[in-house]
Amino acid sequence: MAKQKKAPRPKAQTPKGFRDYFGAEVTDRAEMLRSIAGVYHRYGFDALESSAVETVEALGKFLPDVDRPNEGVFAWQESDEDGQGDWLALRYDLTAPLARVYAQHRNDLPTPYRRYAMGPVWRNEKPGPGRFRQFYQCDADTVGTASPAADAEICAMLADCLEEVGIPRGDYLIRVNNRKVLNGVLEAMGVADEAQQADVLRTIDKFDKVGESGVRELLGKGRLDASGAYIDGVGLSADQAEPVIAFLTSKGADAAATLSNLRAAIGGSAIGAEGVDELDQIASLLDAGGYDAGRIQIDPSVVRGLGYYTGPVYEAELTFEILDDKGRKRQFGSVSGGGRYDDLVKRFTGQAVPATGVSIGVDRLLAALREKGRMKDVALGPVVVTVMDRDRMADYQAMVAELRNAGIRAEVYLGNPKNFGNQLKYADRRNSPAAVIEGAEEKANGVIQVKDLILGKKIAENATLEEWKERPSQAEIARADLVAHVRQLLAEHG
Amino acid sequence: MAKQKKAPRPKAQTPKGFRDYFGAEVTDRAEMLRSIAGVYHRYGFDALESSAVETVEALGKFLPDVDRPNEGVFAWQESDEDGQGDWLALRYDLTAPLARVYAQHRNDLPTPYRRYAMGPVWRNEKPGPGRFRQFYQCDADTVGTASPAADAEICAMLADCLEEVGIPRGDYLIRVNNRKVLNGVLEAMGVADEAQQADVLRTIDKFDKVGESGVRELLGKGRLDASGAYIDGVGLSADQAEPVIAFLTSKGADAAATLSNLRAAIGGSAIGAEGVDELDQIASLLDAGGYDAGRIQIDPSVVRGLGYYTGPVYEAELTFEILDDKGRKRQFGSVSGGGRYDDLVKRFTGQAVPATGVSIGVDRLLAALREKGRMKDVALGPVVVTVMDRDRMADYQAMVAELRNAGIRAEVYLGNPKNFGNQLKYADRRNSPAAVIEGAEEKANGVIQVKDLILGKKIAENATLEEWKERPSQAEIARADLVAHVRQLLAEHG
Repeated sequence: MAKQKKAPRPKAQTPKGFRDYFGAEVTDRAEMLRSIAGVYHRYGFDALESSAVETVEALGKFLPDVDRPNEGVFAWQESDEDGQGDWLALRYDLTAPLARVYAQHRNDLPTPYRRYAMGPVWRNEKPGPGRFRQFYQCDADTVGTASPAADAEICAMLADCLEEVGIPRGDYLIRVNNRKVLNGVLEAMGVADEAQQADVLRTIDKFDKVGESGVRELLGKGRLDASGAYIDGVGLSADQAEPVIAFLTSKGADAAATLSNLRAAIGGSAIGAEGVDELDQIASLLDAGGYDAGRIQIDPSVVRGLGYYTGPVYEAELTFEILDDKGRKRQFGSVSGGGRYDDLVKRFTGQAVPATGVSIGVDRLLAALREKGRMKDVALGPVVVTVMDRDRMADYQAMVAELRNAGIRAEVYLGNPKNFGNQLKYADRRNSPAAVIEGAEEKANGVIQVKDLILGKKIAENATLEEWKERPSQAEIARADLVAHVRQLLAEHG
Repeated sequence: MAKQKKAPRPKAQTPKGFRDYFGAEVTDRAEMLRSIAGVYHRYGFDALESSAVETVEALGKFLPDVDRPNEGVFAWQESDEDGQGDWLALRYDLTAPLARVYAQHRNDLPTPYRRYAMGPVWRNEKPGPGRFRQFYQCDADTVGTASPAADAEICAMLADCLEEVGIPRGDYLIRVNNRKVLNGVLEAMGVADEAQQADVLRTIDKFDKVGESGVRELLGKGRLDASGAYIDGVGLSADQAEPVIAFLTSKGADAAATLSNLRAAIGGSAIGAEGVDELDQIASLLDAGGYDAGRIQIDPSVVRGLGYYTGPVYEAELTFEILDDKGRKRQFGSVSGGGRYDDLVKRFTGQAVPATGVSIGVDRLLAALREKGRMKDVALGPVVVTVMDRDRMADYQAMVAELRNAGIRAEVYLGNPKNFGNQLKYADRRNSPAAVIEGAEEKANGVIQVKDLILGKKIAENATLEEWKERPSQAEIARADLVAHVRQLLAEHG
């Protein structure tokens, strides 16, 4: 007979594509979200926290013929009495829930409704290096107005957010474009076929990579790419392609010049003219608000998102250089994007509701601040009060209480106090600024020892034996001076 | 032939048992979590944010024979190539993920590991009035030490948290008990049978409701309850029941008296003595830290959680009275609980790891602060700059930019400006403190009108027609005085 098997131990690991965040990773992000929320609030945006779980129906992912809708979302079926309940799913962004919330509560919400939301979203995608299936989004949207003033406001707010979290003026640039201008360009070209329009869009997307001549080739007969492969072109004549080239290269010395070039590119297209007018309004509103071209500018080379959005689109990039994995300099790049999308609420209500909004990539922004050395890599740990005599735990507890009441982060060592070396190793691992020691002799004399662990580390790296022996990093002070001494020590290390 | 059916519109609603949170509901909670995190941090606890999704295996819910593990959690199966991937689930609390994190990262974490975590958890339960399937938890735990100093520290920290969020001393009480003392009592009674032990535990849980005599009856032959039904008793003799009664009624005038009564109740039980010693240590550590019996006290009548925990248990309740739905006075009750649980990590590693921790019910605490009028029901909205002349949007945008740069929450009206009444209705709906008006005449004269909407509301409620006509709530001021005037107005309304 086989022995009865014990249940195997569960594996202690996150599911694939998920991770844990520790210490400063959590608090730095929380602090950044709080700063951004402060700016959003100042602009009159109201907080919204919708549930993480939505019906699949509301998210707008439709059930395929298979058993479960698992394309891109994490979904499951509720079991009601018949075992056939609603399909639910984790939200994959914060915009789809906003559309649901607005449709559900529209009679109780102001019009326009300015709302911000921040929180995790989930994507059921193949995880890869640095690509996680849960990550944060931080959005602001204005629902219920078609006014370009709403788009301008969001661009200004985005600039304020970047400065608020520590990106100085000059280190970022917000670039604005408009999908309607592109539609005007397509009209001017006489490209009405949807498949051909899509081909033109795809080609425009390659402008950054292949430049003006590359785009000319790709819009025409085709192009030999760097790998030697021949890429078929869209098959337009040189004349037909001209408006796209004019559009992509219309950036002038200032907004007025750019707008004038764009007007030329769209020819007689009405929708194109509408798009240029909107950009014109946005430019003059931003100018009135004091946002100059060093911070926000009209830039027709912004193509990312042109396919998805229906009007103005905007993108924020950080312009300072960092070194990439191979040690080459490159711009840090995009940290935020958004634009106008007008049909999201219509799915629910049948009525089109204009909306525009932005999403800030907080994890990218945090990475940027770390690159620039504007954020500490490791947060300072607590002051550790060591345990020399385990029967006098109350004495040590009284010390940490004093420190905490003075606002100083502090803890008593709660591991096994037998080996004093382990206590100092623990303090080291916690990145503690100081350790406090009170043995029987100190107690009798009314003094304590305070080890300056930051200075100690510096000395350990550089000191001669003599310097080391002098132990300048350890001070004997009166017990009554505990708080004052530690406060002084923390101030010295800034 | 039937016409082709259009796809029906999706319903705009949250799934059953989920809800949305708006404005101050979101920001008040965020502010409270931040305050509590500040206290946790000061005590040396480190932030941890684990993923919302765990493997079902790691959560410790085991697959039943049916297709999916849906008992209490939201779970789904990953599809790998064979369609047979891991079962994943949303976390149902923050403690099970902590056990997984500690087991996974134990070589990189300090010992003991003090961590805090805050965030939503999900329960797949039947929703009811006020019972939601997603809600916040806010936990702090110390993993890796059996020292009662860790329990004492968490009790002190809990008191500090309550005071930090605005519950004054005297309005809360933290009560501490110990499961080991109960085990000692069971030993002293000679109740070794597990089923009978469970019966005794259930009876103890009814102490609050039925009192000493009721417990005596229930431990003996049984009891006629208020509805006239007869409840069978546990069947113990009066002598056998005595230690439980002694345990439940052992609260003395001070900690020393209580501890002495408890020592009597446990007779010669070793585990009971260990429990009383631990309570003794906790009491003296808290005393040393300055936490008197008005804030934290040993109280053997704390029974909630005694079944689940393995050592000290603690519970915080708010002691002030509120009116219930029927207008009767009652104590607000429990807002936090916790205790020592020693076997959670063992599931993963085979090694028992001692741990103790607390969970604060932030939504209950917010409700308490609202009851006490310590939190505004409705947050003040932004100053609304109205649009009198839609061609001068840039002028209005410049005004809000000035206000925001001065730190004042402000927005320009972005709805259709045609009907001025609608603009004021909007400001009202937003709970705006002031509306700013600049028509063509004002513009020509370099002035603006500022309506004090808070004063306006008060006057509307109380004023005579004459007072109303005087319109003291509207002021004409120089355009240059915008920021100063609004700042003054906001200061007046506190």
